[in-house]
Amino acid sequence: MKIARLTCFILAVAVVFLTAGAAQAAMKTQWIDYKQGNTALAGYLIYDDAAQGRRPGVLMIHDRSGFSENTLADAQMIAKLGYVVFAEDIFGKGIVPKDVPEMTKQITIYNNDRALMRARAVAGLDVLKAQPIVDATKLASVGYCFGGTVGIELVETGAPLLGFVSVHGSFNKFVPEAAKNIKGRVLILHGAEDPVAPIEEVTSLVSQLRAAKVDFELNLYSGTTHGFTRPQNPSEVRADDEYKVAMTRFFKDILSR
Amino acid sequence: MKIARLTCFILAVAVVFLTAGAAQAAMKTQWIDYKQGNTALAGYLIYDDAAQGRRPGVLMIHDRSGFSENTLADAQMIAKLGYVVFAEDIFGKGIVPKDVPEMTKQITIYNNDRALMRARAVAGLDVLKAQPIVDATKLASVGYCFGGTVGIELVETGAPLLGFVSVHGSFNKFVPEAAKNIKGRVLILHGAEDPVAPIEEVTSLVSQLRAAKVDFELNLYSGTTHGFTRPQNPSEVRADDEYKVAMTRFFKDILSR
Repeated sequence: MKIARLTCFILAVAVVFLTAGAAQAAMKTQWIDYKQGNTALAGYLIYDDAAQGRRPGVLMIHDRSGFSENTLADAQMIAKLGYVVFAEDIFGKGIVPKDVPEMTKQITIYNNDRALMRARAVAGLDVLKAQPIVDATKLASVGYCFGGTVGIELVETGAPLLGFVSVHGSFNKFVPEAAKNIKGRVLILHGAEDPVAPIEEVTSLVSQLRAAKVDFELNLYSGTTHGFTRPQNPSEVRADDEYKVAMTRFFKDILSR
Repeated sequence: MKIARLTCFILAVAVVFLTAGAAQAAMKTQWIDYKQGNTALAGYLIYDDAAQGRRPGVLMIHDRSGFSENTLADAQMIAKLGYVVFAEDIFGKGIVPKDVPEMTKQITIYNNDRALMRARAVAGLDVLKAQPIVDATKLASVGYCFGGTVGIELVETGAPLLGFVSVHGSFNKFVPEAAKNIKGRVLILHGAEDPVAPIEEVTSLVSQLRAAKVDFELNLYSGTTHGFTRPQNPSEVRADDEYKVAMTRFFKDILSR
């Protein structure tokens, strides 16, 4: 019995290592050029090439830094969950703000022109839907920071997403009654001490979602400021762990049916 | 290789069944008489007798229905996670309200006399701590509904709990500055459409916890009214699942260190 259990344990460890190795080796990435109106855009596609058949797709919406290393790392993390991830481009091909003033300049363009924000968001979703490896009936989205604003605007267009995850998203200037267009679920993962997107923005969004009877869940983390996915204190380390668990469970719940 | 993996699978299944069987067979329960002042109280102790050594303890605080079947079932669920659970008695030995007016009468006594509420809560904690099988350095608490009020009052006494979980708790009449006495973490699991403990009560408690820099997390479930642990609609079925996952993770995090 003891030898059999030891064999079992060794086998299990071997399977875990082999699987992990295979998955990493087969992670495929590709930059895809596309357009919204006359604007050239370039998004980042990433998925596990070892998997077979069509898979659920996750549209990722970058934060104010655009296609930073963090954006690509987060896209990879989500792709490893088994989804085809397309990190769409909101700012335009080659536009990567190099400092905070440049970031603010970029996001202000879209925060003040919500029709343009929506059009950019939809353009990326169309690219994801068109991928031959994507099951277009199983789509979700995730947005970080500024990408939280874009993500809410996107679901408020009535886009056919089964769910949207906001990770320290900023929420402002939504047309309140637009929440009734949301078709899927919304998961809001937020720091209670976020100075960029203060708790009052969350409270306001929650009111709109409640009024529209949208299916949502809010996880609010104490002692946590903005950008907790790059944690600065022990509370944010935990928030970073918790958000990954919550997001993974959420995607599994809506995309694995 | 295939035979070895099949053997491994069969062994694993066998282990799961044997373990589950053993755990259920060994679940031990006991009613314990104790006192607070001159008032006779009787609480319900439940734990897995098969486990060895001292284990973390969880103080459970009943809802307005007192020791209903639900209370005992929830105590068993938590005991199965590997903790010694003591469901303390707030109302007094033998007092089990038979209808809503009787429930309201009972909880009103304690809602209006917070010193008494605290004394009752502490008395039960003392019983749990005194159990020879309990590791008194690893204590947590969980309160349902009215038990949420009691649980917050208890942690605001400065009780040495590593954490408290409120499940559709009602929150009112707290002395705001008392939150600074809270030593452990707080997990609030709440329905966004709770008419008994409306979202404004949660917002108010969150403000107090933030001001006192208490380590907390709030999970807010849409479409969910009060008492979602006995779900009435699909949103509440999910909230019931989600709360168990969140509570289990929370207890593991604080009690398994």
